[in-house]
Amino acid sequence: MKPGEFILEATDGAARAGTLMTAHGAVRTPVFMPVGTVGSVKSVDPDDLNAAGAQIILGNTYHLYLRPGDDLVARRGGLHRFMAWDQPILTDSGGFQVFSLSALRKLTPEGVEFRSHLDGSAHFFSPEKVVSIQRNLGSDIMMVLDECPPYGADRDYAARSLELSANWAAACRAAYPQGSGDQLLFGIVQGGFYEDLRAESAARTIDIPCEGYALGGLSVGESKPEMLAIMRHTAPLLPAGKPRYLMGVGTPLDILDGIEAGIDMFDCVLPTRNARNGTLFTTQGRVNIKRAEFREDDGPLDPNCPCLACRRFSRAYLRHLYVSRELLSYRLNTIHNLTYFLALAAGARRAIQEGRFAAYKAGVEAVYGGTQG
Amino acid sequence: MKPGEFILEATDGAARAGTLMTAHGAVRTPVFMPVGTVGSVKSVDPDDLNAAGAQIILGNTYHLYLRPGDDLVARRGGLHRFMAWDQPILTDSGGFQVFSLSALRKLTPEGVEFRSHLDGSAHFFSPEKVVSIQRNLGSDIMMVLDECPPYGADRDYAARSLELSANWAAACRAAYPQGSGDQLLFGIVQGGFYEDLRAESAARTIDIPCEGYALGGLSVGESKPEMLAIMRHTAPLLPAGKPRYLMGVGTPLDILDGIEAGIDMFDCVLPTRNARNGTLFTTQGRVNIKRAEFREDDGPLDPNCPCLACRRFSRAYLRHLYVSRELLSYRLNTIHNLTYFLALAAGARRAIQEGRFAAYKAGVEAVYGGTQG
Repeated sequence: MKPGEFILEATDGAARAGTLMTAHGAVRTPVFMPVGTVGSVKSVDPDDLNAAGAQIILGNTYHLYLRPGDDLVARRGGLHRFMAWDQPILTDSGGFQVFSLSALRKLTPEGVEFRSHLDGSAHFFSPEKVVSIQRNLGSDIMMVLDECPPYGADRDYAARSLELSANWAAACRAAYPQGSGDQLLFGIVQGGFYEDLRAESAARTIDIPCEGYALGGLSVGESKPEMLAIMRHTAPLLPAGKPRYLMGVGTPLDILDGIEAGIDMFDCVLPTRNARNGTLFTTQGRVNIKRAEFREDDGPLDPNCPCLACRRFSRAYLRHLYVSRELLSYRLNTIHNLTYFLALAAGARRAIQEGRFAAYKAGVEAVYGGTQG
Repeated sequence: MKPGEFILEATDGAARAGTLMTAHGAVRTPVFMPVGTVGSVKSVDPDDLNAAGAQIILGNTYHLYLRPGDDLVARRGGLHRFMAWDQPILTDSGGFQVFSLSALRKLTPEGVEFRSHLDGSAHFFSPEKVVSIQRNLGSDIMMVLDECPPYGADRDYAARSLELSANWAAACRAAYPQGSGDQLLFGIVQGGFYEDLRAESAARTIDIPCEGYALGGLSVGESKPEMLAIMRHTAPLLPAGKPRYLMGVGTPLDILDGIEAGIDMFDCVLPTRNARNGTLFTTQGRVNIKRAEFREDDGPLDPNCPCLACRRFSRAYLRHLYVSRELLSYRLNTIHNLTYFLALAAGARRAIQEGRFAAYKAGVEAVYGGTQG
């Protein structure tokens, strides 16, 4: 297989199991991608990621552009070599962080002006610029520049925004024509929470030849039913022969809902951020490790988990590390949560291949149903 | 060999190479002991410690008593099992932390009353109590309760203090008579910066049958010549047939000075604390990893070091992690500094065995001389 090729290997309802080839190897889908914001998945090293089962990680263009700088990373031989990760990397376009983290942004048809959240310095992201940055980073999958409308944006705003995003996507593709290199480029469907605008955005976006397509603008504050409705409406509008990526989502149940709707790729800070807050995902449900009930609990965090935290340490010790704010706590918790999320996606893949995805999903729902989801 | 046996295998001048047996295996000396304050050597796991070459680690009685509590640790099967470290552990007596960290202490012949630095709660450490705590923790080497006089203490204070410490040491031994278990008990020589008081304290302390003897009260703010003078004066007063432990010291050169004077065991927070501050010890000298000169340095932190940080990552990446305050920075830096300190002691051991300790020490001094030490 050549970079960009995607083989659909099995389906089970709308759920899909496939393989996407990249310049750094194959990605077996459905797949969860740990978030390595600024050249490091927080608190873990590449060996930890491998042990947890990571196939591909995500890097944030906005963060890496500001620090250490994409030029510097390029001079180091690219992000893979810089961070010693030789498997695939996807980089976002930086758009989401510009709209959520930075200050004083000014939007024009040419791009977006913003000030760094680090030092207030002024910067400008155009479609061409974010492609250039991602070329410097050398990611396997680049994302087009898009605007993610805030939750609650009215129809007019969402319509204008999707127009802007579609034009930016075309400009990104023009800046890096298909076939001009081993890096892939994914388009992003926006359109807010309006089904017709999502359809229009999907049509506009798939008109641009990309190696994959993403659903953006979800998990921005909406209710779960709103998220599900837009996801289920939009996923089938994306080409069946290309990977589909649901950006920034979500909980274990969100991910299974996405897989059920035909999504192949997911990323979210939930497992890593929650790990650092002491909220752990297990095959028996969520565990808030700081709770007093674990003070003298000699059992493993999750008896069904093969990760370092579960294999070597007790809940009592993990609780002690967390309440003592020991640095080891963050790493062990992160290793565990990533192992859970990666196994969740790998388990879904096997279930799809074996035609039992509905039962697999029901099994997780039985644990994470109600308020656990 | 039985726990407590110490074999002197080689000497080179006053420098010694030996083996101390404990209930969790042999310790080859000279040895550096990483500090695992509260049941974790900060930021690293037991596999990291093994890879760095750690033979024995130190736990702090004061911290573990306050949190999670020695009773709780005992119910978990002891500190080894609790923290998943199956090699030797030495615990201090808590005295040093009581005098340096806690508030409102009140000293009596029976012990010391203090308030927790965590929550202000009142506690009392007697000789019997600190033995009981260390019995609960199940450490391989326990330390007697002592008072560490502040730097600048006058002669009267130091004399009264050594009297108190000697009485407490006898009480600790009485609470745990020699031969009553597999845990070892080490006495501690005090006496401030007065050579005659050090001699008196040494005589009083070695009168108490212990499996090893320590020099306490150094590295408390004195100049290096003052530290060296007391160390060189006191070390030869300790029995040649027992391990000698210099508590809380020190820099690479301090450790080699100690070994030269006949010390066998060392502990210090320097490598771990400095790692978290970005100060790294290498075979080429100290490296302040945040310096701008490393922004684009693709070389390893230390080309002569086999640790994960040096083997897999560049100075540019380590600098980036540090300035970005990424959690991985603390672990990689800690792994490196521990590897350096542990290799320093292991190298001294080989040099002593081969009769070339002076040259070995001179080699390190050539790198760490002057302000580097």
